[in-house]
Amino acid sequence: MGYRVTGSLWIEFQNERFFGPGRVELLKYIDETGSIYKAAKKMRMSYKKAWKMISSLNEQVKQPLVIVKKGGEKGGGSAITDEARALIGYHESMRKRFTEFLEKESKKFR
Amino acid sequence: MGYRVTGSLWIEFQNERFFGPGRVELLKYIDETGSIYKAAKKMRMSYKKAWKMISSLNEQVKQPLVIVKKGGEKGGGSAITDEARALIGYHESMRKRFTEFLEKESKKFR
Repeated sequence: MGYRVTGSLWIEFQNERFFGPGRVELLKYIDETGSIYKAAKKMRMSYKKAWKMISSLNEQVKQPLVIVKKGGEKGGGSAITDEARALIGYHESMRKRFTEFLEKESKKFR
Repeated sequence: MGYRVTGSLWIEFQNERFFGPGRVELLKYIDETGSIYKAAKKMRMSYKKAWKMISSLNEQVKQPLVIVKKGGEKGGGSAITDEARALIGYHESMRKRFTEFLEKESKKFR
């Protein structure tokens, strides 16, 4: 009683952090708002930091995850790709399996 | 290729960190050296910090995990209990299951 097995999970690419809860959230907000600028604001993150996360993501995959439309930094708007949607979906199902794993372990520990 | 699902795992007691790789290592060194002082040194940790970890561990469980024998801080020596050994064993098997989980997820992701 009172004991709980817990943990965190992320995806690495060539030993560098590639995908985790923060990036998922950012992509979801870009999808919702159509804008990196607005998404960053929702996350209370600087636009610069959000931009860096996005360009790092785009560099690490073959298909880009975010398409930045032209028209100036705040003017053009951005959209996430099907590739990004697939990644978000995979990440969610992985987190579910991780939650199940942790619950099972917590029961074993008691 | 190059993608890997990874993560970390620990046990909480009443929402506070209770057991993870650092504490396992400390207990193992106490077992090996018979001394909190020597164990701390092996981990390049201050004696004070090691002592705090041990008293926090002992407070969180019904059966103590480390028995401190009398004879002064450096004179008496310490030993880990069967309870501690069971906990270390459980932790090792849990980490094995976690490694398997991560490998399975990494394969799914590719």
